[in-house]
Amino acid sequence: MARQAKRIFLTEDQMPTKWYNVRADMKNKPAPLIHPGTHEPLTVEQMEPIFCTELCKQELDNDTKYIDIPEEVQEFYKIFRPSPLIRAYELEQALGTPAKIYYKFEGNNTSGSHKLNSAAAQVYYAKKQGLKGLTTETGAGQWGTALAMACKHFDMPLKVYMVKCSYEQKPYRKSIIETFGADIIPSPSTTTNVGRAILEKHPGTTGSLGCAISEAVEVATSTEGYRYVLGSVLNQVLLHQSIIGEEAKLQMEMVDEYPDIVIGCAGGGSNLGGIMASFMRDKLEGKNAPYFIAVEPASCPSMTRGTYAYDFCDTGHVTPLAKMYTIGSEFIPSPSHAGGLRYHGMSPIISQLYADGLIDEARAVEQTKVFEAANLFAKTETILPAPESSHAIRVAIDEALKCKETGEAKTILFNLTGTGYFDMSAYMSYADGSMKDFIPTDEDIKSGIAQLPQV
Amino acid sequence: MARQAKRIFLTEDQMPTKWYNVRADMKNKPAPLIHPGTHEPLTVEQMEPIFCTELCKQELDNDTKYIDIPEEVQEFYKIFRPSPLIRAYELEQALGTPAKIYYKFEGNNTSGSHKLNSAAAQVYYAKKQGLKGLTTETGAGQWGTALAMACKHFDMPLKVYMVKCSYEQKPYRKSIIETFGADIIPSPSTTTNVGRAILEKHPGTTGSLGCAISEAVEVATSTEGYRYVLGSVLNQVLLHQSIIGEEAKLQMEMVDEYPDIVIGCAGGGSNLGGIMASFMRDKLEGKNAPYFIAVEPASCPSMTRGTYAYDFCDTGHVTPLAKMYTIGSEFIPSPSHAGGLRYHGMSPIISQLYADGLIDEARAVEQTKVFEAANLFAKTETILPAPESSHAIRVAIDEALKCKETGEAKTILFNLTGTGYFDMSAYMSYADGSMKDFIPTDEDIKSGIAQLPQV
Repeated sequence: MARQAKRIFLTEDQMPTKWYNVRADMKNKPAPLIHPGTHEPLTVEQMEPIFCTELCKQELDNDTKYIDIPEEVQEFYKIFRPSPLIRAYELEQALGTPAKIYYKFEGNNTSGSHKLNSAAAQVYYAKKQGLKGLTTETGAGQWGTALAMACKHFDMPLKVYMVKCSYEQKPYRKSIIETFGADIIPSPSTTTNVGRAILEKHPGTTGSLGCAISEAVEVATSTEGYRYVLGSVLNQVLLHQSIIGEEAKLQMEMVDEYPDIVIGCAGGGSNLGGIMASFMRDKLEGKNAPYFIAVEPASCPSMTRGTYAYDFCDTGHVTPLAKMYTIGSEFIPSPSHAGGLRYHGMSPIISQLYADGLIDEARAVEQTKVFEAANLFAKTETILPAPESSHAIRVAIDEALKCKETGEAKTILFNLTGTGYFDMSAYMSYADGSMKDFIPTDEDIKSGIAQLPQV
Repeated sequence: MARQAKRIFLTEDQMPTKWYNVRADMKNKPAPLIHPGTHEPLTVEQMEPIFCTELCKQELDNDTKYIDIPEEVQEFYKIFRPSPLIRAYELEQALGTPAKIYYKFEGNNTSGSHKLNSAAAQVYYAKKQGLKGLTTETGAGQWGTALAMACKHFDMPLKVYMVKCSYEQKPYRKSIIETFGADIIPSPSTTTNVGRAILEKHPGTTGSLGCAISEAVEVATSTEGYRYVLGSVLNQVLLHQSIIGEEAKLQMEMVDEYPDIVIGCAGGGSNLGGIMASFMRDKLEGKNAPYFIAVEPASCPSMTRGTYAYDFCDTGHVTPLAKMYTIGSEFIPSPSHAGGLRYHGMSPIISQLYADGLIDEARAVEQTKVFEAANLFAKTETILPAPESSHAIRVAIDEALKCKETGEAKTILFNLTGTGYFDMSAYMSYADGSMKDFIPTDEDIKSGIAQLPQV
């Protein structure tokens, strides 16, 4: 019998037309965003100066299980979706494992990532509201690229604050974001009050997502007709990313498979949140469900070494407070190559699911081990993975190697959201042996957590 | 009625299992490769020191219409094939044209190009013959990457000579090729006799495909168990690339379309040769067929300003002579950003078809106009195209704009073989206005042609 196809595609007609809102099925809802002064849950009215109105509603909607994907967003999705589910035959063979490894590949668009799924939605709603422009931050540059692409599609001006260490490591990202017509500023910058304050406090800092968020929010709230958009962490982002899991589940069904293990990297949570969505629904509905693993960098271990508490979403403390696993909003992680995972906190949804034991495990991995996995994956599967996604690859390989020892033929699914074409300096530092691992000391973690706001 | 899908996929089962050999249908066969000393057509025996034996046979086979794709090559193809045919709805809308534009997208693999189609085949045959290693040249780096990927897959050592101007413009290409385990040397280099001679004659040269070929051939023929492989120009390469056209024709049929115009960029000919194959068969079989356009860079205009004659395939004159459109093997083109098109000659198959009027038109375009088209394409279709493929985009846009004037709803098909992720320095020079056009003077062309060997 011929083997099953390596790449499993859906047709446009099979593409899901609704996002799945996992909050509707959660018994313990994610804790609400609260006002940093009053500690009262935020209302749509209070959030509206920051986010566009429809997205504020989505942010607070814990009840609607399915939300229609607007037709214009579906049309935009069709430029790059549905995305393939791929059976990692070549990787399995190299490992000599009886495990069956599948990955959902979201990297086949010019942003090189899944970020376009939420960018498309957020820009659409902003345009519909008649806004004049958007601001955002970007770490590795994938979100900034995705948002620039969506802004070009819907004809919306955009300013991107890019974490300085990524800006410097990835000179061509700047150019590609500009190709799509956006302005890009390295963060921390002197263009904002919060940026200037951070630079004064931490001269020479290479920045972090937390800093960049502060700057982008400041510009959005102080410029008429502008709003801020965020590529991860928020409930709305996980909602939009649910299309990944919805497609993946359909594709697994097409080949009569169901995952035993689902793996996603976790920086702010959009990657894991996307792939797990539809399988988590099974779990919340009391059905058979996979074992869920969140993978984070050892250099920024919010789930494995942080605490579950209210914290600012940003370093400059201009945002509301979110209850999440955090190592403290003033923790500035070492300049590892996975810029997209250098975030002190974690999606409130993922945090609640993890606190409730519904996400089974969080695992921190070191970047040299991650790049070892990335190299093996590239050589076998011929896709050059982004450093962020390679965290999931590392754990998928480790789980497949366990299967080799036990002889179990588990079905492993992970989310390959990004390509590494703009991360060659990282690959070079791995190849020449100069790559280092950064692991915060207990003292670092304690001091990060000590700064948490009193709620 | 819902519009037809944007992306048209074949299943693995629908993937062609045979390559189409256009030579079998050509009344006037392409002129044979001849020995530079005797001027006699080369035999398999004479070619065997350079190429692996099965590929020599394919090179000389003007008769077999269909050649089975070996099962191992089909398996490798399934990692990245079949490739999508995409309807350029967004580009059409931006142009306001009644034309229907389709593109076959071959860039969704880590080599970022169609080159993997021939690399897979060539490395497979070399492995089957028990060879110890391969050498090659690369221009833009796509062929080098593709070959490194195939060599890793089939476990075959590889040395890549990379045109120096690309090597310098694209530092990360070096790293990606090394990630797949190959050695890479900038050309001209001091590692070969021919490289040293070229450097002495043209100190400070930024190299060309012709130089790099000379070096790679020298190493292959002087190292035991090694052979040389080439990513374009040769008949065997066009044979392997026919899978592009075979798939595209099936995909067009799935949506009840047939192209009025087929467009491919032409450096050595593998891009155009691939997309045109199945439609040229229609023409050669006397059926209705499209209008074929070969697009070349104005900086290296072999078809539009060269002559149809026997010439060396390389600058160092270590190769056989091929009859082709050429501007002379000693012509070193200006350092334009389309490294893959900086070749003095042209595929003998394409040359013969053009000489016979079967390829209807060759058109030379300037690189600033090409990047204008590339930027519009990226902004609308969200795929960042390689400079080489953008030559075809330029002409597709020009043809679509003609349709806008005449009101004709022509169906245009072009081959988008590459992505531009490693070409950001070119995009940057376009964006900042520093990009120049290079057009050889009549004197340059005359002096290139004056050096042709007497046959």
